[in-house]
Amino acid sequence: MIDSSARFAKGFRMKLIPLFVAIFSFAAITLTQTARAEEAAPFRHFVSFQFKDGTPEAKKTEIVDAFMALKSKIDAISDLEWGGTENIEPLNDGFTHSFLVSFKNKAGLEVYLPHPAHEEFVKLLKPHLEKVYVFDYTAKK
Amino acid sequence: MIDSSARFAKGFRMKLIPLFVAIFSFAAITLTQTARAEEAAPFRHFVSFQFKDGTPEAKKTEIVDAFMALKSKIDAISDLEWGGTENIEPLNDGFTHSFLVSFKNKAGLEVYLPHPAHEEFVKLLKPHLEKVYVFDYTAKK
Repeated sequence: MIDSSARFAKGFRMKLIPLFVAIFSFAAITLTQTARAEEAAPFRHFVSFQFKDGTPEAKKTEIVDAFMALKSKIDAISDLEWGGTENIEPLNDGFTHSFLVSFKNKAGLEVYLPHPAHEEFVKLLKPHLEKVYVFDYTAKK
Repeated sequence: MIDSSARFAKGFRMKLIPLFVAIFSFAAITLTQTARAEEAAPFRHFVSFQFKDGTPEAKKTEIVDAFMALKSKIDAISDLEWGGTENIEPLNDGFTHSFLVSFKNKAGLEVYLPHPAHEEFVKLLKPHLEKVYVFDYTAKK
């Protein structure tokens, strides 16, 4: 009786393995698909800066860092990246720094623009800004 | 004898289920991680167009479609998206269409620019192009 119930318990445990593996793989696939769905049609806010002549490198770094810090201050931002120009073709019209701010949809940008953290950033940027380029779009594949 | 070998075969098949599920989940996780690794520090080629006054909408659509078709013609392209301006701030300087071409690294852009499929696309675009903006950068987080 003991032997048979132990065997039953062991058999039961063995049968749980595929269940756990199935739950695990289901979770992994669901997470992957959720991540893809969120990437489906993001809204992009592409921004390029040219700084005024004589802006110290340290000030430029401070501005880049302050921009990048907005990701942790404004929940609506789903992704944020930046880069300095590495243009092969000289078609960047004097712009040296670009930022790509991503949102789930356009409503995210509408939250972002008047956000106090963004306004504070603009105050830091403005005195050093020669010109700015902005292009907002829904990313289509 | 037949009964026991049939039971053995059934038991064997049952034991294969967790194996298949495990292989499947391993593949799903590996693919996810590979996708993330490739996203690590991609190289971006951001391009904006303003078309000449009077360019027919059908020609603009043809040009967008031809640009997007480069993804299947040039292996170096890891991602390609586009969007029409939905600017909230009027800082897009007359540009109406933007494209974000992604590569694993800058070498990808060096393959892309002189590629015959890209050169053919430029031939289609040029007669209708008023101006172009290009910003190339390594995407930093």
